[in-house]
Amino acid sequence: MYLGIDVGGTSFKAGLVDENYRIVDKEQIEAARGAENYGEYLAGAMAELCRRLLDRNKAWDKVSCVGAGMPGFVDPDEGVIMFTPNLPLEKVPIRELFKAHSPLPLYIGNDANCAALGEYHAGCGGGAHSMLMFTLGTGVGSGFIVDGRIYTGWNGAAVEAGHMLLVMDGRQCGCGRRGCLEAYASATALISDAREAMSGAPESLLWQTAGGRLEGVNGKTIIDALVMGDRTARGVWDNYLKYLAQGIINGLNAFQPELVCIGGGISNAPDEELLIPLQRAVEGKTLAKGTHKQATLKKALLGNEAGIIGAALLGR
Amino acid sequence: MYLGIDVGGTSFKAGLVDENYRIVDKEQIEAARGAENYGEYLAGAMAELCRRLLDRNKAWDKVSCVGAGMPGFVDPDEGVIMFTPNLPLEKVPIRELFKAHSPLPLYIGNDANCAALGEYHAGCGGGAHSMLMFTLGTGVGSGFIVDGRIYTGWNGAAVEAGHMLLVMDGRQCGCGRRGCLEAYASATALISDAREAMSGAPESLLWQTAGGRLEGVNGKTIIDALVMGDRTARGVWDNYLKYLAQGIINGLNAFQPELVCIGGGISNAPDEELLIPLQRAVEGKTLAKGTHKQATLKKALLGNEAGIIGAALLGR
Repeated sequence: MYLGIDVGGTSFKAGLVDENYRIVDKEQIEAARGAENYGEYLAGAMAELCRRLLDRNKAWDKVSCVGAGMPGFVDPDEGVIMFTPNLPLEKVPIRELFKAHSPLPLYIGNDANCAALGEYHAGCGGGAHSMLMFTLGTGVGSGFIVDGRIYTGWNGAAVEAGHMLLVMDGRQCGCGRRGCLEAYASATALISDAREAMSGAPESLLWQTAGGRLEGVNGKTIIDALVMGDRTARGVWDNYLKYLAQGIINGLNAFQPELVCIGGGISNAPDEELLIPLQRAVEGKTLAKGTHKQATLKKALLGNEAGIIGAALLGR
Repeated sequence: MYLGIDVGGTSFKAGLVDENYRIVDKEQIEAARGAENYGEYLAGAMAELCRRLLDRNKAWDKVSCVGAGMPGFVDPDEGVIMFTPNLPLEKVPIRELFKAHSPLPLYIGNDANCAALGEYHAGCGGGAHSMLMFTLGTGVGSGFIVDGRIYTGWNGAAVEAGHMLLVMDGRQCGCGRRGCLEAYASATALISDAREAMSGAPESLLWQTAGGRLEGVNGKTIIDALVMGDRTARGVWDNYLKYLAQGIINGLNAFQPELVCIGGGISNAPDEELLIPLQRAVEGKTLAKGTHKQATLKKALLGNEAGIIGAALLGR
């Protein structure tokens, strides 16, 4: 069996994963906001999650290590969390800290990379040569799996497809650059675009699906209005797809994977609104035109569980 | 010993390469423009180059295969040239055709990938974990070496960094998309930008270095005017570096190599005009900020020989 932890900004989720890569038991701890020494606190909380799952399932002799996905840039070789945008963790030697709390060796990875690894092995991967995953959520996460493993680059920070610049001197991105894919293709960007469009369209169904309030807008309310045939939602969505498609083409020209996996909240849109138009926009636009080896776009299958399962497989 | 061929649009160059990755003898054939069946013609010309080199050096028993770099998209596994923009070669099973002309097994690769492999092993690579190369010539070629090998992706067409879109709805690129790095950072783009700037600047030294004619402008004449302190050249160059730097940052966020190698004609610019400002523009701008593992930019060392040496090493 395998043990995986998904470290999020608001909670830490752990799962015990069986040999078929299915989660057989789960545990969760809400993240304490004001912990003094956050690295030390996180190490303790992670060990506590492991203890609960292994005690309850009498599985101490069935796992040999634990893996954890971190919401930021990690050095997987050194076991150090280098930087996280949403948690006070900078250059935290989490593998070392974890040793004081648990006998299990700890492997760490970036959370989007873990989600990609989980989807590859237990979700939509299906034994593909390679898979590039885009997670369309608060940000745009990404991960690349080749030979069944995460590609992390020399320093652990590779495959940040959300932070490829698509628009020279474009929108400010959280990473410090301007014009990154994330600033156009995250759920956050989609919601912001929808709100802006709504202001000039009082008749739009976007108001209705959002309960009449700009604050009520989320990915789902936008997709709902789109499916209901709303013109304003259509304009916002088509523009969103335009940027996303160019980001995917850039990713294909860089990595040429067999499979592109689309995950995150936005991937819940119906295929005819997301996968099919994206596949159409991408086909024949990469440098691999003319070959039958064209990447296939697929929807992620595991939802939030992908991160736990992938983390569990880090030490395999 | 190794045998490598660099297939260009105007000539085919071959080299016999020793165990220290140095070219010990060379041969060249000017490409016949109007050959009826170009794939068949190319196979024969390549075999003739091999024959001349191996006969002259009495080296038939010293090589076990031959490698060739092709100016386009190839399927290295199948030994098929899929498409070349500047030669009439589409879906040409060159490995199969070559068999009728030579007893040597043939390995093929993309020419920019071969140049990267050559630079990695015999040039500026220096045993780095990984190396991303940009070749700034007529186009922007690129190649990525990891674990000492070319990364080609599932279909052979990976790492086309010149065809990452940097400017949404930007300049038309030869690949069919708009706004690719190549449309801004190739020597062709630089020359075109310089010519445009010259039209409004009759006093510019760009006229002088180009012999007073727009047709006289090339990469070298622009760099010469720049080094002489010409303001117009400076404006063109700074704009050129802006796009190139963002392309390199995108490449770093994708691959996070230990080394970035800059080759091609433009890389002959003095370090203080190219490498140093690029390194400055890139530092702290990637997602790997905060780590000591920051990629180093280096200049390619082998010039045109990189492609022959890299091709020679394809079958190693």
